[in-house]
Amino acid sequence: MSRERVYLYDTTLRDGAQTTGVDFSLEDKRLVAAMLDRLGVDYVEGGYPGANPLDTAFFQEKRTSRARFSAFGMTKRAGRSAANDPGVAALLEARADAICFVAKSWDYQVTVALEADLEENLAGIRESVAAAKARGFEVMLDCEHFFDGYRANPDYALACARAAYGAGARWVVLCDTNGGTLPHEVEAIVAAVAGHVPGSHLGIHAHDDTGCAVANSLAAVRAGARQIQGTLNGLGERCGNANLVSLIPTLKLKGEYAERYDIGVTDEALASLTQVSRALDEILNRAPNRHAPYVGASAFATKAGIHASAVLKDPRTYEHVPPESVGNARQVLVSDQAGRSNLIAGLERVGIHLGKDDARVGRLLSAVKEKEAQGYAYEGADASFFLLAKRELGEVPEFFDVERFSVNVERRHNALGELVTVAEAIVKVRVGDEVLISAAEGNGPVNALDLALRKDLGKYQRFIAGLELVDYKVRIFQGGSDAVTRVLIEFGDETGDRWCTVGVSANIIDASFQALTDSIVYKLLRSEAHAV
Amino acid sequence: MSRERVYLYDTTLRDGAQTTGVDFSLEDKRLVAAMLDRLGVDYVEGGYPGANPLDTAFFQEKRTSRARFSAFGMTKRAGRSAANDPGVAALLEARADAICFVAKSWDYQVTVALEADLEENLAGIRESVAAAKARGFEVMLDCEHFFDGYRANPDYALACARAAYGAGARWVVLCDTNGGTLPHEVEAIVAAVAGHVPGSHLGIHAHDDTGCAVANSLAAVRAGARQIQGTLNGLGERCGNANLVSLIPTLKLKGEYAERYDIGVTDEALASLTQVSRALDEILNRAPNRHAPYVGASAFATKAGIHASAVLKDPRTYEHVPPESVGNARQVLVSDQAGRSNLIAGLERVGIHLGKDDARVGRLLSAVKEKEAQGYAYEGADASFFLLAKRELGEVPEFFDVERFSVNVERRHNALGELVTVAEAIVKVRVGDEVLISAAEGNGPVNALDLALRKDLGKYQRFIAGLELVDYKVRIFQGGSDAVTRVLIEFGDETGDRWCTVGVSANIIDASFQALTDSIVYKLLRSEAHAV
Repeated sequence: MSRERVYLYDTTLRDGAQTTGVDFSLEDKRLVAAMLDRLGVDYVEGGYPGANPLDTAFFQEKRTSRARFSAFGMTKRAGRSAANDPGVAALLEARADAICFVAKSWDYQVTVALEADLEENLAGIRESVAAAKARGFEVMLDCEHFFDGYRANPDYALACARAAYGAGARWVVLCDTNGGTLPHEVEAIVAAVAGHVPGSHLGIHAHDDTGCAVANSLAAVRAGARQIQGTLNGLGERCGNANLVSLIPTLKLKGEYAERYDIGVTDEALASLTQVSRALDEILNRAPNRHAPYVGASAFATKAGIHASAVLKDPRTYEHVPPESVGNARQVLVSDQAGRSNLIAGLERVGIHLGKDDARVGRLLSAVKEKEAQGYAYEGADASFFLLAKRELGEVPEFFDVERFSVNVERRHNALGELVTVAEAIVKVRVGDEVLISAAEGNGPVNALDLALRKDLGKYQRFIAGLELVDYKVRIFQGGSDAVTRVLIEFGDETGDRWCTVGVSANIIDASFQALTDSIVYKLLRSEAHAV
Repeated sequence: MSRERVYLYDTTLRDGAQTTGVDFSLEDKRLVAAMLDRLGVDYVEGGYPGANPLDTAFFQEKRTSRARFSAFGMTKRAGRSAANDPGVAALLEARADAICFVAKSWDYQVTVALEADLEENLAGIRESVAAAKARGFEVMLDCEHFFDGYRANPDYALACARAAYGAGARWVVLCDTNGGTLPHEVEAIVAAVAGHVPGSHLGIHAHDDTGCAVANSLAAVRAGARQIQGTLNGLGERCGNANLVSLIPTLKLKGEYAERYDIGVTDEALASLTQVSRALDEILNRAPNRHAPYVGASAFATKAGIHASAVLKDPRTYEHVPPESVGNARQVLVSDQAGRSNLIAGLERVGIHLGKDDARVGRLLSAVKEKEAQGYAYEGADASFFLLAKRELGEVPEFFDVERFSVNVERRHNALGELVTVAEAIVKVRVGDEVLISAAEGNGPVNALDLALRKDLGKYQRFIAGLELVDYKVRIFQGGSDAVTRVLIEFGDETGDRWCTVGVSANIIDASFQALTDSIVYKLLRSEAHAV
């Protein structure tokens, strides 16, 4: 059987941004696009340039290197040419490789929601696709409400699909916009459409309103579609989009899909999937779903006593795929063995090479486990993980010692009678024989503390001059009987280097301070400072 | 087309109890069984009597009135008769209507995990089923690992199914124990088995390890199976079992399933489904999944402005089922992309009724947009949204005025030389003519501030005595040129009421303080405090 290519189109940054409670910053978008690029999806849809300033700004640069960078937007409106449509113009200005237009394909929606003419809608599709293609973009059309439309008026829905294909669209994407179509219906309708537009040009865009988005995407591939649109962790409006994190392992590893189709995700990238899924949650400050297929913390956990011993006897009969293939780990068997190889892989990632039988691995493993029990999470904080390891290995000198700090935030009326809030911090630090005390004001307590801490580190000051706090995240969770605060801080320097650290405490200032000092120590360790 | 009955078998209290972090008490079990009984499932599996004291105790009474109450357990072991097997004896003693035996049907598992003889395993099935049937129970067999077993050795898997059916089992349930089977495989295998055991006697038991448990259950029904085993909210080991809360509305409301099959759930019971789902989360003290199909808080939420006005124009084109059919409600989110119709719908939700043409709507809309531009997000903060509107309408009295606050966090060595971090706050507040000053220590700055602020509000103190900070969330994002902190705080009171407020500032303490004061003002506004 000849193998065929199935293409993955990620819309985390566009449809995923519609998730209740999700709000990407420009920096978040940059991080997610880079992550998707590394993962090996074929297309990264960055947003809807022209619809809001954030997305317009995001498309001022191409944000991917391997994946095609795609801009989403509506086809031209009725009554004007594509050239004169400001929405289409914004798309054509985008620094993108591809443009994904969206147009309605349900006759009722065209007339009721758009209050437009059916023929005009088709003309809008043809002209918009042609205009984008003429400008050198790869073009695709999201046929909105395709499945509802097909059930109501198959001829019109097909006419929309054919209009796009005829005008040169690389992909015609059939969207189950309301998410109510069931797998057997998707399979039948995609197969029917494939009689008019070749399956190799058809895509599927499914939503999870019946809990079948993943199955619907798989059914569409069986029926001939060769592009799947989805999001990381199934983000998306209402119940979410098809979850690429569930689909990718199925396509790579499972039965007929693995036998017949290739995707752009390598085995190595697949092994990073658990980390990718959790990193996205970290960026969005959401708790990861423990029960997520493949990547959830419980996905390979066994609680049942009868099963546990059998799992030990022969894991493969209780695991539908090997957990390490997706970068996850078996939980019942947090055997030293599984833990050790995970740890060794993690160390390799931050550039520390220890042999499998190195006695220090066991000591490090206990240290990591102890920290994790306190609430530390190193998945998003490589620099702190690096430091933890280096400290256990006795390779971190004591650059400085903080003897005391104090932060004060006050809201009061100033001399003009205005209500103002001021934050100031004092840090007393010993560097070698020198004792240095610095004070600073900031926008808030963490900013004040950061500025005071970095104001004067004596002989090390020149190594940290170019530092900049890039991102600051806080998560509060229950740890034991009380709330625990976990702070993640990202720093950057003048070379463009970036690193993340973590701090944990019941006190947010304390947690922030840990992450701040880790960040500075990391920088000093990476520089020539230890030779001073 | 003649309609057929599909039976629902709930295993929340047995397989669902395997969920990581789930621990039912006897009282929890009683509540859940009663809830399932009212919902109209056909079978309630209460547990595994004999396996643990809790389950044994639970089966000392029949716990359902309409539904059949079912006990789960293993078939007899090799080398003894059913009458002499203590496990089987415990089942036969249970006050149950039905017994669901489990036995392996994968030859490899029988020989490796059980270390038993293949023929002995078949005899165990036959004898156990016959013994329970002779005692008057309705009997069924869960064929463990059926799909993996069928792929490895279809003859043996079928022999297990036939042994149970031949011995008088009402149901032979095909279990995808590892959860790795995909919908098209389930459909093919169930159809093949239906050639040996009538479909009207076949059940499906699916797990969600590929995100296809719901689709697998639906595929099995299409292939002839007439019993579905699942759990409320998809509880269950690893990634969970098939979610009955997703399946029930699909079977009742959607296309071919609604046309061809009847289930025991009435329309009235269906309208309680959202409440049932959330009540289970309440019992388990879990946060409900906002994005759950049909019953999630966001399942009928629309964020996009272009869609919002269209949804209001004709909801059915944007909703695959009417939200009220499952006891849920349409939610139009007040968000960045909001228009007037979003706003009016949002106001309705918090109990403020303004007509479409009310001039105040425009003023309120500008106020909301201005706040959102500063970084406020009202999606998760109904109480702050309510207050914003009430303030714009001039309906919020000035209960109190904070003249000054100050928070200090200090890390230093104490008298014993230990490094300690202490947080304390002082709040000076005017209530009418009274000026009150309070101080408090806390785990961290926000805790200290919260305690000091709520320590003494003079004549209003009695209205806020029962308040409790339930949840605290922080998000930092870029707003304009600088980082902005958004704090979401959830409070609860002695009546079980809960409400969320939001605060935004460059200073995290300031943002927290806004959310704290909003929360108190909200409580005062909802109480009789304005009459004091």
